[in-house]
Amino acid sequence: MSEAPRDIENLIELMAKLPGLGPRSARRAVLHLIRKRGLLLAPLADAMHAVSVTARECITCGNVGTTEVCDICASEKRATGELCVVEDVADLWAMERAAVFKGRYHVLGGTLSALDAVGPEELRIPKLIARVADENITEVILALNATVDGQTTAHYIADELEGRCSVTSLAQGVPIGGELDYLDDGTISAALRARKSV
Amino acid sequence: MSEAPRDIENLIELMAKLPGLGPRSARRAVLHLIRKRGLLLAPLADAMHAVSVTARECITCGNVGTTEVCDICASEKRATGELCVVEDVADLWAMERAAVFKGRYHVLGGTLSALDAVGPEELRIPKLIARVADENITEVILALNATVDGQTTAHYIADELEGRCSVTSLAQGVPIGGELDYLDDGTISAALRARKSV
Ligand SMILES: [Zn+2]
Ligand SMILES: [Zn+2]
Repeated sequence: MSEAPRDIENLIELMAKLPGLGPRSARRAVLHLIRKRGLLLAPLADAMHAVSVTARECITCGNVGTTEVCDICASEKRATGELCVVEDVADLWAMERAAVFKGRYHVLGGTLSALDAVGPEELRIPKLIARVADENITEVILALNATVDGQTTAHYIADELEGRCSVTSLAQGVPIGGELDYLDDGTISAALRARKSV
Repeated sequence: MSEAPRDIENLIELMAKLPGLGPRSARRAVLHLIRKRGLLLAPLADAMHAVSVTARECITCGNVGTTEVCDICASEKRATGELCVVEDVADLWAMERAAVFKGRYHVLGGTLSALDAVGPEELRIPKLIARVADENITEVILALNATVDGQTTAHYIADELEGRCSVTSLAQGVPIGGELDYLDDGTISAALRARKSV
């Protein structure tokens, strides 16, 4: 791709590493950015720089924020005693958009996967078990995707926490094979309200 | 979207303005960037900043570059006497990837469109006519997309240049309704070699 100047080639190559963008759409995006370099490219460069400096993972729950402990973990308004377990931060955001869960979260950072050799130690499962004891958690709500790996992970966690707290999972409304981040807020609300014991 | 910190929300909103990315894919992209903030986010911020400072349109042909006159217009290796007219810079890059045209370009910046009220003055058509005289152009090759607006624009330019130089267009190999930037290099090469008089 030597047809553009080096600075621009470099930007295209980096943009092509974003999920959902290939080389062609990266080129289109970069040309769009150059056309709107005052209105969009410069602000985007600044916003990326700001986030690259400030963004970090919450040491307690794994949520993304700008402080050592995220806003949700730090908030005194959030209910203590229950944790909602999600696979990744996008799912946490989907739960927050539904605005029905008032407790705190725990972000696993993925699911158990024999195929990809992801075991409990690769996820935040040991930290989850520690939190259940340390924070006197009485209910863990598993809001994992309705995929095979998501459900395998749910059963593993339910087994690990047996006798330590009640473990429930989102139920009604989550379609088979569905991913939380694709669902509308109402579906997530219904699934949370109708949660059942695992 | 108040579920993420303000810096991160701001970045998501800007990313969602990129062509091909909606709010959901922008959130996914930003989370990916945050996970790879050292390897991808910081370099991307730097690359965007560099391009936002250096990128400009060539005053002669409309190509994107980092100098007042682009590398192609400035190159003494490019043939004089023929101009390849394209709709936008992505098409110029597609022609360059095919590596078969040795002359210089003229980027219109779009096509004539009655619907969108785009007339010749909104494009670089007056500049094209001036270049044909100033640069002693003997052949203008129209490499416009095989769309209705592209072909309307080709006919308008051919009429305007009648008697001033020969006007040809890419022919064999460009599918009906096809866009240059989607084609493989071989197709573009064949179409250029088999160009015909308009
Ligand atoms: Zn947290
Ligand atoms: Zn130029």
